[in-house]
Amino acid sequence: MSFEKVKRSENYSEWYNNLVKQADLAEHSAVKGCMVIKPYGYAIWEKMQAQLDKMFKETGHSNAYFPLFVPKSLFEKEEKNAEGFAKECAVVTHYRLKADPDRPGRLMADPDSKLEEELVVRPTSEAIIWNTYKNWIRSYRDLPILINQWANVVRWEMRTRLFLRTAEFLWQEGHTAHATKEEALEETRKMLEVYATFAEEWMAVPVIKGVKTENERFAGADDTYCIEGMMQDGKALQMGTSHFLGQNFAKAFDVKYQHRDGGLEYVWATSWGVSTRLMGALIMAHSDDEGLVLPPRLAPIHVVIVPVFRSEEELDRIAETAQRLRKEIEAHGYTVKFDHRDTHKPGFKFAEWELKGVPLRIAIGPRDLDNGSAEVFRRDTKTKEVLPLDQISSLVPGLLNQIQDNLLERARSFRETKLFPVNTWDEFVEAIDKKEGFALAHWDGSGETEEKIKELTKATIRCIPLDVAEEAGTCILSGKPSTCRVIFARAY
Amino acid sequence: MSFEKVKRSENYSEWYNNLVKQADLAEHSAVKGCMVIKPYGYAIWEKMQAQLDKMFKETGHSNAYFPLFVPKSLFEKEEKNAEGFAKECAVVTHYRLKADPDRPGRLMADPDSKLEEELVVRPTSEAIIWNTYKNWIRSYRDLPILINQWANVVRWEMRTRLFLRTAEFLWQEGHTAHATKEEALEETRKMLEVYATFAEEWMAVPVIKGVKTENERFAGADDTYCIEGMMQDGKALQMGTSHFLGQNFAKAFDVKYQHRDGGLEYVWATSWGVSTRLMGALIMAHSDDEGLVLPPRLAPIHVVIVPVFRSEEELDRIAETAQRLRKEIEAHGYTVKFDHRDTHKPGFKFAEWELKGVPLRIAIGPRDLDNGSAEVFRRDTKTKEVLPLDQISSLVPGLLNQIQDNLLERARSFRETKLFPVNTWDEFVEAIDKKEGFALAHWDGSGETEEKIKELTKATIRCIPLDVAEEAGTCILSGKPSTCRVIFARAY
Repeated sequence: MSFEKVKRSENYSEWYNNLVKQADLAEHSAVKGCMVIKPYGYAIWEKMQAQLDKMFKETGHSNAYFPLFVPKSLFEKEEKNAEGFAKECAVVTHYRLKADPDRPGRLMADPDSKLEEELVVRPTSEAIIWNTYKNWIRSYRDLPILINQWANVVRWEMRTRLFLRTAEFLWQEGHTAHATKEEALEETRKMLEVYATFAEEWMAVPVIKGVKTENERFAGADDTYCIEGMMQDGKALQMGTSHFLGQNFAKAFDVKYQHRDGGLEYVWATSWGVSTRLMGALIMAHSDDEGLVLPPRLAPIHVVIVPVFRSEEELDRIAETAQRLRKEIEAHGYTVKFDHRDTHKPGFKFAEWELKGVPLRIAIGPRDLDNGSAEVFRRDTKTKEVLPLDQISSLVPGLLNQIQDNLLERARSFRETKLFPVNTWDEFVEAIDKKEGFALAHWDGSGETEEKIKELTKATIRCIPLDVAEEAGTCILSGKPSTCRVIFARAY
Repeated sequence: MSFEKVKRSENYSEWYNNLVKQADLAEHSAVKGCMVIKPYGYAIWEKMQAQLDKMFKETGHSNAYFPLFVPKSLFEKEEKNAEGFAKECAVVTHYRLKADPDRPGRLMADPDSKLEEELVVRPTSEAIIWNTYKNWIRSYRDLPILINQWANVVRWEMRTRLFLRTAEFLWQEGHTAHATKEEALEETRKMLEVYATFAEEWMAVPVIKGVKTENERFAGADDTYCIEGMMQDGKALQMGTSHFLGQNFAKAFDVKYQHRDGGLEYVWATSWGVSTRLMGALIMAHSDDEGLVLPPRLAPIHVVIVPVFRSEEELDRIAETAQRLRKEIEAHGYTVKFDHRDTHKPGFKFAEWELKGVPLRIAIGPRDLDNGSAEVFRRDTKTKEVLPLDQISSLVPGLLNQIQDNLLERARSFRETKLFPVNTWDEFVEAIDKKEGFALAHWDGSGETEEKIKELTKATIRCIPLDVAEEAGTCILSGKPSTCRVIFARAY
């Protein structure tokens, strides 16, 4: 159980992989590129889901469910979308297995069950959904359609990393249909705000809201809005995207509606999604060499109580107080674990719960009982404080709020130190390469320059920030004129 | 929007199909055999999920997630399981599409991306999960493992019906690992009880708990427990199954644990699941010729308020009272819809909300306001009552409870009239064929007889009830001795 210590500073990537496995969040499966999300990791994802789902419903969306498979002929219809995902598609070609005549006990795809048309396992659902919306939309009265789906998707990946890049992942995908361009744009931005609020207030990860360049846009979108977080190694992680799809899918699937005043018009569309990738962001934004650090609002366990005892009698005495304390804290709406195992020493338990990122630990020994106090440990600051037993439960809500705020503040301060406005190529390379941060740099607006910068530095344009100030300047690579700074970084 | 009236009594099957579509629950998709679950249908499924999930967690289970794909070599390992599902498996053979050189704008599976080993889209997850558990289990201290997964599964079907039989469906599958046979058996029965409680207390569908015969057992199980409900056409619907898997999967995947006192033993297993099929059961158990009838505990909308007005002034007056009433009822924890559309007449709205199964409807007109009363309509009994406006909100919880209880009671009474203890072949045929019910009959215990009865009557043994009384008798077909009655019925 003990955490094999690879420090963040030594090898960030290995640190991350170890942490995901040792904190029991996820592991690789027997299927290349697919992960198993373990109960502790899934419990965090469930907390994310619950809050996001609430926010989607508060903004007027309903959930629905569309098929896993997309017939190839539908998948092809929106050409850019098809082209963008074709290279990552798992393809179903048969619908039956039969005994392999050459190998007793083994099975083979039955050649007689070959499908007339192959089925693509959805890498995203625009095609199947717009083919469905086609039948739902006749007039302006049928609009808007505001639907979300929680689902699994498959994008074949050669190089995978738990949570960050896996062949199958879990996500939600919102798909909305609107009568006007303005309304669709408003929806696109509204959902970006929802994601930003979730990232900051729940995950305690500050994000930069922006628009992607054409190169980085979702295949089939007119514009892709995104939120970008900074990880502790200074790399960027795209945490969510909200796409303004224009009339591209409406045209591909021939979805028109009748106006209030007569005529027919193509429907306007958005789609937006976040995935189990957020788990990676959560881990990489806050955790340390001792393990996971979880913001209280997403922690499956808020408080762990560890008894420090030598005999069964001592445990019995402590247990009485601990159980009372547990109930008091639970009455505030928090989850408390009383770890009374007699198979492990307190030190082992301390390390284990630190590894698992539980925000608060309360240690109670016989002497504490005598003194009417207990030792309270904060996972975020690793500070201990001796507090009166009869006050602890009333102090817990405030402490947890402090931890939540502190994590966001800490991440924000860290990011401040890694955001570098740069004006020359040398400064740019230094910011990306040596200082390992985000570079705010002028860019000439061409995809060619963007590509060249990527080749030279592995840095990509993460976004053009929404709140960017207009400022005349010259492109760091080409020297051509530019009107604003964009964010460059290496990214996950 | 109006419900195309096909009466239950005229054509039950067409009535069901119409209802599912017209109440906006689900529809067929462009993918053969796969359905789209529409927002209103999905909202009911979400209510089912939320309650089941709560019950699983209360009985000590955690959620996790395992891959969608199962490598063929793993799928083959438990032979009976593999044999049982082989004929229904969607098979992924390629992981990339490319432009089809012969057909511009079209794609084809890229031959260079052919997988070395085919992947089966999970029809059920025992194989992939036991291959994972193998690495999680070393000693008795690692047991039990109590995990549930909410997921989609695919079982290729030629003849599909919305919710009842679709190629892809949504479900939950519990997979547990235990040190002893007794504990695994206890778990199997415990989860059957959870399902039975859910069916009766939430869905208001009474169920018969029992054990399947060998012929009807889950492929790979030593015993399959089930709950069977009776639909309004007298046919049975298997609503949930809980499997005692013995050591079959542990042996197939070589999963052993070290005993407290040394030696190694194979692990004992269970699995249990319910699916979106429950939606079919819910619809068929209660609904009528006017549409859906929903038990309040699973209704997305509990109360609809319909204003009856001729002018905007009247609507304004009514709206004030309606909004106040809505808030009062919502304060009790219920969902209320105030349908103030001016595009539809009250009669249309009445029919629409009846079609959608909303348990209570409150109609308010100008005269009602003057009298300080409103008309309250119960969907289950189709009775109207004029009640004082200032008492309605406090009466609603009681009314909804009455509806919930009445639906269960009504379904139970109906079932009573359709349960026929029979002693001869003629009585048996009459019970199944003419009286369209369940037959409680003696059976000689042989699979051969069971098959023959199925061929002759299309009736199958639904289960051997758990509470069956020992009773000497003779098999209705073979005349051989029998020790108890089993339940025969035609089934979905």
